[in-house]
Amino acid sequence: MITMKITFKRNLVAVALLCALAFTTTVAHAADMLPSWNDGKAKQSVVDFVGKVTKEGSPYFVPPTERIAVFDNDGTLWAEQPLYFQFLFAIDRVKAMAPQHPEWKDKEPFASLLKGDVKGALAQGEKAVIEILAATHAGMTTDEFDKIVKDWLATAKHPNTGRPYTEMAYQPMVELLAYLRANDFKTFIVSGGGVEFMRAFAEKVYGIPPEQVIGSTGKQQFELRDGKPVLVKLAAVDFIDDKEGKPIAIQRFIGRRPIAAFGNSDGDLQMLQWTDAGTDAHFCLYVHHTDAEREWAYDRQSSIGRLDKGIDEAQARGWTVVSMKNDWKTIFTPEKK
Amino acid sequence: MITMKITFKRNLVAVALLCALAFTTTVAHAADMLPSWNDGKAKQSVVDFVGKVTKEGSPYFVPPTERIAVFDNDGTLWAEQPLYFQFLFAIDRVKAMAPQHPEWKDKEPFASLLKGDVKGALAQGEKAVIEILAATHAGMTTDEFDKIVKDWLATAKHPNTGRPYTEMAYQPMVELLAYLRANDFKTFIVSGGGVEFMRAFAEKVYGIPPEQVIGSTGKQQFELRDGKPVLVKLAAVDFIDDKEGKPIAIQRFIGRRPIAAFGNSDGDLQMLQWTDAGTDAHFCLYVHHTDAEREWAYDRQSSIGRLDKGIDEAQARGWTVVSMKNDWKTIFTPEKK
Repeated sequence: MITMKITFKRNLVAVALLCALAFTTTVAHAADMLPSWNDGKAKQSVVDFVGKVTKEGSPYFVPPTERIAVFDNDGTLWAEQPLYFQFLFAIDRVKAMAPQHPEWKDKEPFASLLKGDVKGALAQGEKAVIEILAATHAGMTTDEFDKIVKDWLATAKHPNTGRPYTEMAYQPMVELLAYLRANDFKTFIVSGGGVEFMRAFAEKVYGIPPEQVIGSTGKQQFELRDGKPVLVKLAAVDFIDDKEGKPIAIQRFIGRRPIAAFGNSDGDLQMLQWTDAGTDAHFCLYVHHTDAEREWAYDRQSSIGRLDKGIDEAQARGWTVVSMKNDWKTIFTPEKK
Repeated sequence: MITMKITFKRNLVAVALLCALAFTTTVAHAADMLPSWNDGKAKQSVVDFVGKVTKEGSPYFVPPTERIAVFDNDGTLWAEQPLYFQFLFAIDRVKAMAPQHPEWKDKEPFASLLKGDVKGALAQGEKAVIEILAATHAGMTTDEFDKIVKDWLATAKHPNTGRPYTEMAYQPMVELLAYLRANDFKTFIVSGGGVEFMRAFAEKVYGIPPEQVIGSTGKQQFELRDGKPVLVKLAAVDFIDDKEGKPIAIQRFIGRRPIAAFGNSDGDLQMLQWTDAGTDAHFCLYVHHTDAEREWAYDRQSSIGRLDKGIDEAQARGWTVVSMKNDWKTIFTPEKK
């Protein structure tokens, strides 16, 4: 834009100088934008990919408008143990809402939850999970829900680490998001989590604006209350953004095939396959939870974030697999004082 | 980004010079970015709104990330008479596909269409419309459909004007989109049209990328064909992006309340109400089809693009109403030679 408006030779020279300087520093800083990554195959594969799709004249060059990168959230951008954080939020909400629901004392799965028996509540199966989510995620306006989530994030602490949940984002992935954006990628979340739950922190924690967060959705209703329109969250599932749902959601929301996809579980496999089936200029990466000491170690047998078929396909197709233990210098984003 | 990397005083001076120059030209050019608008209340209301939300320190200032503008498509960004263009596409497709469907000769609503009796086909009601859309919009992959639409747009001509459909976009609205983007707005389509139909031309005609096009959707299925993933369009409606559906879609896709909304019919009313209920810094506009000579004149009685309740509410709430006849110097985008 600016260069088109310049009419003085002197300014043209200044622009040329600036561009040259900017180019030099960009190249020089590329590697430094990923300081929490150990040098090795995984980091190198990312840097090589970004280098080849951004290099004009390269056969792999991709114009900026087509540089779409999609990220799963739970287990890929932040932790997901011992339970998905959104479910821990729901449990906290059941406790907070219990005084208004005396009937829950004798009604499962709420009774178990209120006694602190999460395992017992979950043992009652999918129906119980849906009841808990419906009770805590519906029957309020979208604005009210947003406030509830933000208030919870501001005070709640993770049961194992004692950290705020927003400080259980992975520092290497936060750096990767910024590195891709600095190279004109548009970064999206495509996750099984509830879209409105994720939007409450995605911009602050990941730098991803609400309109680039795709997730599972519940049905909503438009109402005029005293002439003022509100959207009310209903207790009915609209769309589950997992497995086959991920490429379908990518098509519905983005309408372009991503050139880079990042996941950590079999729930992300179809999203990676969809990305992998694009042009030669694409990149697929699995985060493998291998660090029992600094985070958690789990894969083929885990009920949360199972990575079984996915890791086989990653090997067969030559996708990058990040070992959290070996490839990451640090795991979590720094604590805020 | 660039300024942060500058270390030489000389370049700092150059940047300051450039910024000053850019600022001067931006302000000077603001009005000139809308050359197809006649001077008057409508144009002035747009310029005033953009001025107040972009002026730092103003009580109405809105940060760039929150400058979301939503546009209906049919009747707002391009014409919609004598029938929605997507329906004219479907009719052309029925004719093109007829040799593969000999049974259509005796089967309604196809038989009427093939005899050129569109009115007769439509008289059979909603079921007929859905059958025509299902036959022409489903049973193929998303990539195949995209190609079919693009091929059609490249050759088909509007029955009244003889123009390609993409040249029946409204020049004043194309200028308005560019003007808003030059002021750091993010422009979205939120329309009842099929999302994949609109994406086939929205970037080229309006400068709106696929991920900022929201529309009605059909269900899709993820399949592996010879190991290669495809998305197949199914003959089932997923979501109708009209009336109450528009604010719901805005919440689902964008997750932020727009500060500017543009429509032309009662189908856009809830989207404008939703925008109107935001902070003081918002703008709602209806395009009123008043130009029987250069376009079409219709409102309260029209079966397509009816504007009845909407125009009453616009008057009551002080929304801008554009008279195409009086406010627009030209209607359509220039013909390409």
